[in-house]
Amino acid sequence: MRNQPDILAKINEDIIEKIDSMIDHTNLKPYSTQKDLVKTCHEVLEYGFYGCCIPPWFIKEASNILQGSAEVVTVIGFPAGYTSLKAKVVETQKALEDGASEIDMVINVSAFKSKKYDLVAKEIATISDIVHDAGGLLKVIIETGYLSEEEIGLASRIVAENGGDFVKTSTGFGPRGALPEDILIIRRNIPDSVKIKAAGGIRTGIQAFLFYTLGVERIGTSSGVRIIEDLKKISQLSNQI
Amino acid sequence: MRNQPDILAKINEDIIEKIDSMIDHTNLKPYSTQKDLVKTCHEVLEYGFYGCCIPPWFIKEASNILQGSAEVVTVIGFPAGYTSLKAKVVETQKALEDGASEIDMVINVSAFKSKKYDLVAKEIATISDIVHDAGGLLKVIIETGYLSEEEIGLASRIVAENGGDFVKTSTGFGPRGALPEDILIIRRNIPDSVKIKAAGGIRTGIQAFLFYTLGVERIGTSSGVRIIEDLKKISQLSNQI
Repeated sequence: MRNQPDILAKINEDIIEKIDSMIDHTNLKPYSTQKDLVKTCHEVLEYGFYGCCIPPWFIKEASNILQGSAEVVTVIGFPAGYTSLKAKVVETQKALEDGASEIDMVINVSAFKSKKYDLVAKEIATISDIVHDAGGLLKVIIETGYLSEEEIGLASRIVAENGGDFVKTSTGFGPRGALPEDILIIRRNIPDSVKIKAAGGIRTGIQAFLFYTLGVERIGTSSGVRIIEDLKKISQLSNQI
Repeated sequence: MRNQPDILAKINEDIIEKIDSMIDHTNLKPYSTQKDLVKTCHEVLEYGFYGCCIPPWFIKEASNILQGSAEVVTVIGFPAGYTSLKAKVVETQKALEDGASEIDMVINVSAFKSKKYDLVAKEIATISDIVHDAGGLLKVIIETGYLSEEEIGLASRIVAENGGDFVKTSTGFGPRGALPEDILIIRRNIPDSVKIKAAGGIRTGIQAFLFYTLGVERIGTSSGVRIIEDLKKISQLSNQI
């Protein structure tokens, strides 16, 4: 073996399997058709991804297709985050009723930037109770692209202290997606019991592998299929050297 | 008068006044602070704009500042449009309770692109009834940037047939803002009783004037102040020729 970076040599079948099983395969494009969304669900089944993240209006159909083979993930207050708590509550209740098992909620970034931390804490605690009562998981999107390093830390602590199961970096609709730096900052601000979902702009195998090595527990991407195919190709090429 | 395009000569105090009084001065940035939003409200009062368009969570405070001097406008299902009807209903009820008088709702573009026109018609009819019962106005955002010419026409007709008071072109978060072509297509698909709000990417006086000459009844912009100052400058320069 020569000229092969060590990091790539680590990409083997086991690792690919692990990355595969931490992907929330996602389709949240506002213009996606029913046919596109059905395709996303079928890709989830074909590749054995962990979850399938689709818009609220499509939850029932996604649940019917997936039949428990993958988590049905949806988004709340998405992507702007500045709806009222009452709206977020009803959105969440309806999503759970329709069959969602995981809720990815955007915090009210506008309120957070206004230092109304109590409001943000209350949103998370309220939604967390509703989701947990239904046996689901809550991921809280802090939209790191709008936050300073200090704010990322503070937001992460608020999530952890108010029942969020995951801190999720980004919506994919903000100024940028997840950065490795985000993960490092979030991780040192939350206990091990709280997990991290990296999302936004993760489109290639090597990017997904990078976030895996950083220790994230979930990856949100609309490129799940490409990521796995990329990783298989890297593994195959590594073996040929 | 030489070298002066006729079109600019038309920009006089009366026209500026008219354009001013058709602006929904808008601040929907997900990262705007309370201070930023308060400033937007004060600009509305200072310039005498028609409405003040702010996020749902800020409606109560905006109503308190504006005290009926301008319409309080907010957004529903914004900007992605693909939340459930139940969520849109509660969002709307809460917005009206908090003091909003005008509701700018995004259609479920995903459902529309899936040819689920009944679903889109039902959303509009349902929200329209709620808004009208409260004495408010409903503007329906069709997000022209995602639609073909034919689809813009069809969406406009669905809005008109289901109680929408305005067809609004864009969210400002889509692939593009309002185009003059959009206005021409929408206008020939709706009766005179239904109005048009041009929004998205309208940042200068001359752009606003262009949409005014096309006959739109409302302009949504975060650049209301600049637009009026631009027009005053154009008028002043025109008079000096």
